Amino acid sequence: MDLLSIITKKKLGQTLTREEIEFFAEAAAQGSAPDYQLAALLMAIRLNGMDARETADLTMAMARSGDLLEPDVGGVPVDKHSTGGVGDTTTLVLAPLVAAAGGKVLKMSGRGLGHTGGTVDKMESIPGMRVSLPEEEFVAIVRRIGCAVVGQSAELAPADKRLYALRDVTSTVDSIPLIASSILSKKFASGARAIVLDVKFGSGAIMDSLAKSVELAQAMVDIGTHAGRQVIAVLSSMAEPLGTHVGNALEVKEAIDILAGRAGGDLKEVSLFLGAQMLRASGVSTSFEAAKASLEKVLQNGAGLQKLREMIAAQGGDPRVCDDPGLLPQAPLVRDVAFESAGYVAEMDTAALGLAAQGMGAGRKTKEDVIDPAVGFVMRARLGGRVRPGDPIATLHARDEASLAAAAEAIRKAVVLSDAPVQKPALIHAVITQDGMETLSSDL
Amino acid sequence: MDLLSIITKKKLGQTLTREEIEFFAEAAAQGSAPDYQLAALLMAIRLNGMDARETADLTMAMARSGDLLEPDVGGVPVDKHSTGGVGDTTTLVLAPLVAAAGGKVLKMSGRGLGHTGGTVDKMESIPGMRVSLPEEEFVAIVRRIGCAVVGQSAELAPADKRLYALRDVTSTVDSIPLIASSILSKKFASGARAIVLDVKFGSGAIMDSLAKSVELAQAMVDIGTHAGRQVIAVLSSMAEPLGTHVGNALEVKEAIDILAGRAGGDLKEVSLFLGAQMLRASGVSTSFEAAKASLEKVLQNGAGLQKLREMIAAQGGDPRVCDDPGLLPQAPLVRDVAFESAGYVAEMDTAALGLAAQGMGAGRKTKEDVIDPAVGFVMRARLGGRVRPGDPIATLHARDEASLAAAAEAIRKAVVLSDAPVQKPALIHAVITQDGMETLSSDL
Repeated sequence: MDLLSIITKKKLGQTLTREEIEFFAEAAAQGSAPDYQLAALLMAIRLNGMDARETADLTMAMARSGDLLEPDVGGVPVDKHSTGGVGDTTTLVLAPLVAAAGGKVLKMSGRGLGHTGGTVDKMESIPGMRVSLPEEEFVAIVRRIGCAVVGQSAELAPADKRLYALRDVTSTVDSIPLIASSILSKKFASGARAIVLDVKFGSGAIMDSLAKSVELAQAMVDIGTHAGRQVIAVLSSMAEPLGTHVGNALEVKEAIDILAGRAGGDLKEVSLFLGAQMLRASGVSTSFEAAKASLEKVLQNGAGLQKLREMIAAQGGDPRVCDDPGLLPQAPLVRDVAFESAGYVAEMDTAALGLAAQGMGAGRKTKEDVIDPAVGFVMRARLGGRVRPGDPIATLHARDEASLAAAAEAIRKAVVLSDAPVQKPALIHAVITQDGMETLSSDL
Repeated sequence: MDLLSIITKKKLGQTLTREEIEFFAEAAAQGSAPDYQLAALLMAIRLNGMDARETADLTMAMARSGDLLEPDVGGVPVDKHSTGGVGDTTTLVLAPLVAAAGGKVLKMSGRGLGHTGGTVDKMESIPGMRVSLPEEEFVAIVRRIGCAVVGQSAELAPADKRLYALRDVTSTVDSIPLIASSILSKKFASGARAIVLDVKFGSGAIMDSLAKSVELAQAMVDIGTHAGRQVIAVLSSMAEPLGTHVGNALEVKEAIDILAGRAGGDLKEVSLFLGAQMLRASGVSTSFEAAKASLEKVLQNGAGLQKLREMIAAQGGDPRVCDDPGLLPQAPLVRDVAFESAGYVAEMDTAALGLAAQGMGAGRKTKEDVIDPAVGFVMRARLGGRVRPGDPIATLHARDEASLAAAAEAIRKAVVLSDAPVQKPALIHAVITQDGMETLSSDL
């Protein structure tokens, strides 16, 4: 077997065998395959596709290319992954809630580039918090407390790591089989047996159309079916930032506010929905309704917030932030940006809002950038809302005047008003499981 | 402009601008483009194609990526290129004939890999012959005598050189725009203003089907139209070796025999046909018929053989081989391989015959291999011929018993007999010029 004949088969639109896919993943991980052959194969896959069986084989082959964790957490290890949203800090809300309801949440997360930091960057805005823990330590935390949020170790899925870096520079990122296998290979390697995926669509999402998002979600559920793991995909909208808070410490604060019962809204709704799917996927609850009820109980009785305190303490952080979010890093400048005219909030360029936060220092442009945990903004406007001149669009938390002015300008441009009343779009559109797709909005 | 956005455009099936193509060719030649990006782009071109304008732009961009010769040869520099055949030594027959009829043949040829050597390797089997000449020297020879056959200088079309090497290892050789632009970029760079292409099809040819061969031929004629150069393509069959002689010195001997009037057959027919197209393409003759008549005249009156003597002498070789081919290298073992049954010669696996010659030492498997000029074989069987047991299939010229036995076995397997009489297939199928396609056989 050789890589050239594998490239030829895919170029001709043929289906690769499991052995061929394992050969290719192994060659990528070992470094024996030259970049140019992998690049040609990636483009052939991008243009000629892979079927569900090939995609599942690639996922498992990449998962097996490095360490394959089988953590003994005292239950079914469950994880959740979002394809990336602005103001999306569901993990910090749902991980403690799911743990309080009896789930075992092993959340392993990359840092990556983006408008704001990844989940581990947000966690690090809590004073003292450690996200790089040895395997035995974080497994013990999940066993004892029910949840841990840690950075991804370098030894997981090295084949994916190499291919991901190449896709970025060869215009082969936008391939559904490659995206799906990349996401799930890391989840499988980290030991997750049940995975809930939040597939976003809309402005700035990985997939621009609803149809493409459904295709990606279905591809990942199919991988689960082939690989014998529980995968549930949820399709949700990115028409506006999910939470009102955008920025690392700001998002931690919003999560605490929700767990403390002080805040609600879309972030809470989606967190409960995804959390309930996690309890269902891991077999802790027998139905979505039962799972939802459990989560609402631990939210109301404070057990969720108590779990967050325990997890922060177990990972070396200061649990007092849960009672006094003022202990989180604070930006020196806090100022509103206001509407100049009246109308209904009709449209938000979510991607532009994410870039505005990145521009303030909340996210990385290059791997070397250092994140400023304190900066970001709190959206005051929501889609469908009626506003008058002088009403705040957002409250900015900035490091200096220049970055504040730039962000204010970007936010003003990103929010579009209309004269006529506007209907707020649906938030959650569908759930895809191995049993099929359940539609929750009329857009599908 | 950057390479990544060019890859993206081609991935999406869009048309590249001339500026984008020039950027890409320049980046390939300069070394500023990484292999993996070029590999991804080549696969995208292989799968999404290029139109005639893009292909012509790529040809000119690659031609301009290195030295662009404008040789003053005292007429229109004309060249001929074959896509590769077994026993195909038309160049050594037609170059002296076209020169004797008034043409200016500047034949620049690569060595490459293959069943037998390239034209320059065949030339080197003549004692003393030099094929690496400085530009001024070979241009002066063409100006004075009318023809020279030299090796390709390394400075021609470096973008093509880099891309060709990458195509070989990324399964992107079989792309018509890439093949067409690769062939013509080197011809344009070497200063040819009129080019006749012999596009082969059949067993072992670059294109397996007649339809694909027509497509390749048309692509090259279209490049000529866009680039303002005369390009004529001829479609000819590779159903059996073109000449009877396969091997470097053996092929030189057959060329001499034809020029001396001692031999005829398919090689002579195709050489006269291609040579007449060269006289027509370069404007020396006003019609194909007039050109053919000129060539037949210089063949009969010995002016063609005299030109070959002059060219060999000008390039340092021993011109006495033209009168005594016995001065060419001779193999120690000469032996027939015979038919074991009776019938009609129905089919030949031309590619297998080529590999048999390569196995004897007549061609290179790797760039480092040294060619044995003396070895090869002379086919005694021709398609359609009636044979009896004991009749010779071929006469082998071998270096040792082992290689002789292996070649005998391969040749026996490559020639298939039938009980029923067989029609010899047509040799030349069509000619494509800027005015359209002229069909010469009923197969098209």
